[in-house]
Amino acid sequence: MDKHPVIIVGSGPAGVGVAALLSQCAIPAVILERGRIGESFYRWPKETRFISPSFTGNFFGAVDLNAITPKSSPAFGLQREHPSGRQFTQYLRDVVNFHALEIKENVDVKDFRVTDDGSIALITSKGRFFCRALIWAGGEAQYPKKIPHTVRVGSTYKTFPEGHHVIIGGAESGMEAAYNLIRNGSTVSVIDPSAPWEKWYSDSSYGLSPYTFARVRFMEKSGKVEFIPECAEDISENTVRTESNFIQLQYPAIDSTGFDTKQSLAGKLFHFVDGHAELTEHDESTKHRNVYLVGPTVQHDKAIFCFIYKYRQRFAVVVDNILNRWGEYSPVIAEYADQGFLLDDLSCCDGECAC
Amino acid sequence: MDKHPVIIVGSGPAGVGVAALLSQCAIPAVILERGRIGESFYRWPKETRFISPSFTGNFFGAVDLNAITPKSSPAFGLQREHPSGRQFTQYLRDVVNFHALEIKENVDVKDFRVTDDGSIALITSKGRFFCRALIWAGGEAQYPKKIPHTVRVGSTYKTFPEGHHVIIGGAESGMEAAYNLIRNGSTVSVIDPSAPWEKWYSDSSYGLSPYTFARVRFMEKSGKVEFIPECAEDISENTVRTESNFIQLQYPAIDSTGFDTKQSLAGKLFHFVDGHAELTEHDESTKHRNVYLVGPTVQHDKAIFCFIYKYRQRFAVVVDNILNRWGEYSPVIAEYADQGFLLDDLSCCDGECAC
Repeated sequence: MDKHPVIIVGSGPAGVGVAALLSQCAIPAVILERGRIGESFYRWPKETRFISPSFTGNFFGAVDLNAITPKSSPAFGLQREHPSGRQFTQYLRDVVNFHALEIKENVDVKDFRVTDDGSIALITSKGRFFCRALIWAGGEAQYPKKIPHTVRVGSTYKTFPEGHHVIIGGAESGMEAAYNLIRNGSTVSVIDPSAPWEKWYSDSSYGLSPYTFARVRFMEKSGKVEFIPECAEDISENTVRTESNFIQLQYPAIDSTGFDTKQSLAGKLFHFVDGHAELTEHDESTKHRNVYLVGPTVQHDKAIFCFIYKYRQRFAVVVDNILNRWGEYSPVIAEYADQGFLLDDLSCCDGECAC
Repeated sequence: MDKHPVIIVGSGPAGVGVAALLSQCAIPAVILERGRIGESFYRWPKETRFISPSFTGNFFGAVDLNAITPKSSPAFGLQREHPSGRQFTQYLRDVVNFHALEIKENVDVKDFRVTDDGSIALITSKGRFFCRALIWAGGEAQYPKKIPHTVRVGSTYKTFPEGHHVIIGGAESGMEAAYNLIRNGSTVSVIDPSAPWEKWYSDSSYGLSPYTFARVRFMEKSGKVEFIPECAEDISENTVRTESNFIQLQYPAIDSTGFDTKQSLAGKLFHFVDGHAELTEHDESTKHRNVYLVGPTVQHDKAIFCFIYKYRQRFAVVVDNILNRWGEYSPVIAEYADQGFLLDDLSCCDGECAC
């Protein structure tokens, strides 16, 4: 019987990050990964880059925005500011190796049960695994709302035929697609009723990042983009209709409207409210005790943790709760807090830029 | 008589940053600036960009690396990651306006005296100014060791003739010059015995930033650069000699070997040891009481504060000392500390990246 104190499902930045913290707290954990380490990042189009810049500020407490532990830095290992997906998987492997994390690749978790003794049984493609605590770090990038989605682009945007493309959704991934298609010779219409290209927020969870905003300006200058601040009311194989536009499609519209995590096993692990998993203040499931969520899908009221530099701040919240429940203690939690890697007070979100 | 509690000399990021903190602590201060706000940045070549990336992470405590107050962000105001010098002066003006800072431009501080009542008199191009505490924020970029220096490039690198250029010094400014000359069609030799292009440090104070490293790789691929890891033993108008090279110069060598702050009034305000101003633990001069230093020239043993995201961490050390000495108190100091804007324990510099 494959029994573990903690099982983490998924070896993206959230899974590897929380595993690295558990390891430092001397809590044995195993990661089950359906593919390879960082599989979703591995499959990013080769043009795609991180929108948050990596920088080696660790030395004086300005930890790399894309780091998943306070003492590591993608900028340091990869020697670049905006890693590609494949480069970032190299960083994840470095963290796995540095902390000697136990990880089982090619294990597909299909279902789960709570057993009589209260432990959690995971039914997988490689048999059953049991644990006292389950941490779901399945991400969301594998559950696009519609297909074809930008995460299904394949190995490169160059596989898209030249011509006119219509993109539904103007957030980061829609702009990413638009930019690369324009660079490859196409023209693009981007449809989004919230018009992200017009607004500028301090918090990149609500608006475009500086990196993407620079691309918006590039696209506008190119004259090859049309931004339509309307809702796509009807989408078929051949046409898209908005309030004041009727577009004959040369190619199927590209969907960049986001993800639906509920489709995954997460749908059974958590209550979903307004598309988001309902969680306790410790990011534990309200549906099953000892089941936790880490990663970009964590949300508390208005606090969205979709960027790495934010969702990493919840690893210590989860691990601290596990430690407390088991009557254990680790000074590493306080270290994480000192280094800005623990955000538990969500009442104060007064961080808007003054100028 | 123009008398002030605190006078700050220089309105670069250090001067404006410490003034913004003083303002929040309700200590009246005036900035005397020889030129315009952020004059040195204003005169950067137009190609030059910040090597540390700006990003609006303020919302969750990951303050913009180039911000000079915890609540501001150049990325937010300027909508870009790597601001140019002129763009950064816009950010400085925004901070000045937001905090309603008092600043006198076109005032050249020429000398100083300590008066009988212990106050400090500054002799300037616009008459005398008196203060209880003087903060020197004169920077160093106006004091190159030799001429022509990269900071004397002028408005653009395009003013350099095409051909072969020799650069003495391979740190950030040398690489910046090399990169831009190559982009404009020249070939370049970079001479530096410490061979920064070969080494990779976590701390950008000791090595090249990720931004510059990417340029080094670009230059290497271009085949238009030669890196010479030797000392330039002899430099004349027409030749440069190293241990194994004798280079006939097509144009005068470009000096990128750094700065000599001692040349400025700072030379009278501070003891200089090994080229660095000697300071108390509160960054006060060891030569004159109530004279402080803020900015990239602050150094304590191995702790070098040359990057903005580091030297901003000393603003609160200075202001806290002034408050204590005057028997005053402000909760803003604790806020700065909470936000990673106060570094007073220099014993612990254990911030190297693990991976």
